Amino acid sequence: MTHHIPVVEQILSANDRIADENRNRLDAAGVFALNFMASPGAGKTSLIEQTVRKLAGELRIGVVEGDIATSLDAERAAAAGAVSVQINTGGNCHLDAVMLSQALPQIALDKIDLLIVENVGNLVCPANFDLGTHRSVLVASIPEGDDKPYKYPGMYRGVNTLVINKIDLLPYVPFNMDFFQRGVETLNPGLKTFALSCRTGEGLDAWLDWIKAEIKAYRKI
Amino acid sequence: MTHHIPVVEQILSANDRIADENRNRLDAAGVFALNFMASPGAGKTSLIEQTVRKLAGELRIGVVEGDIATSLDAERAAAAGAVSVQINTGGNCHLDAVMLSQALPQIALDKIDLLIVENVGNLVCPANFDLGTHRSVLVASIPEGDDKPYKYPGMYRGVNTLVINKIDLLPYVPFNMDFFQRGVETLNPGLKTFALSCRTGEGLDAWLDWIKAEIKAYRKI
Repeated sequence: MTHHIPVVEQILSANDRIADENRNRLDAAGVFALNFMASPGAGKTSLIEQTVRKLAGELRIGVVEGDIATSLDAERAAAAGAVSVQINTGGNCHLDAVMLSQALPQIALDKIDLLIVENVGNLVCPANFDLGTHRSVLVASIPEGDDKPYKYPGMYRGVNTLVINKIDLLPYVPFNMDFFQRGVETLNPGLKTFALSCRTGEGLDAWLDWIKAEIKAYRKI
Repeated sequence: MTHHIPVVEQILSANDRIADENRNRLDAAGVFALNFMASPGAGKTSLIEQTVRKLAGELRIGVVEGDIATSLDAERAAAAGAVSVQINTGGNCHLDAVMLSQALPQIALDKIDLLIVENVGNLVCPANFDLGTHRSVLVASIPEGDDKPYKYPGMYRGVNTLVINKIDLLPYVPFNMDFFQRGVETLNPGLKTFALSCRTGEGLDAWLDWIKAEIKAYRKI
């Protein structure tokens, strides 16, 4: 978000309308969808690679990658085995529901069970735009520091699930887990949280079990 | 930046006018000013702490901290020995020239040699807003990954100086320095670059020498 100008409210309400359309489209195909948000370099793409690889054979996964430039992330998701589509925002600092609505027709929704949307790396702006996914996942990472919930409250307040990535770096950087989690708890009490390392694989199983349980629950609705 | 709506151009040109006013105010007081930009957690505040501590006795330093919420960073800068002021943007994803113009009267400019402005942690939006500083410094960090120049070209293209922080983590994370620097060189040929670790102090001297040389050159103009 930039300045507080009247037009912003209209943009947000138009966005919400298109987000609802996206959700209806996903629901019609029975596709459960997650919106991954994070700082640049927290490990969203690595988490997608690991998730796609480990769930291959169990779930068919589609990935929509949002970046300002390049198709590097879509290539990584495709190499891991996902059906992947790249959105280049051309300077825009977040995805919005219109961008996702333009990407959806490029994925055969009847051939996937789970859609992961990777937002632009940004701990501020993406929090304001519902895309039409069912859950939002914030990927934090240890080297970013333990003060981030306090400094980026909008993002931490708005998400449904938190992944704390790069726990293998805990011995090498100053990070007070209690201080971090107190900040999270104040903003988002009881937030479902997974601490893991995409690099070593530690903690991944609980995250994968959560995804499978969420999809099971979604199908029962 | 959000959407490409006409009002944005007017905002940017108004911003540039106020940025020029800020620069005139700094020049009238003979204060050299740097705008630090980075992803959340790359180490802007740590670099400020180290810079203030190491240059104490040689240079009088003022710090303007930009954050969405909290005064944690201003407290850290003050504890290191700087005159510090906190701007809370209240949700805004970047500083702009108006915000800096409101912070400047809170600092006795005739009592400092160097002003460091720490922008909101964001690798996209701050690049679009001149604040009225003399140089912009991008703080990258090793755990963010080596693909960031390719994925955030606007930021890498627009800055005058690059600090690569957290080189002490190179043994623990995958990071191809050649690939990273090729990306930087394509976007911003010959960009002045310092690789260092705020944690171990490695590489800090060259950075501090650069600041001192820049201030010397600024005073000769």
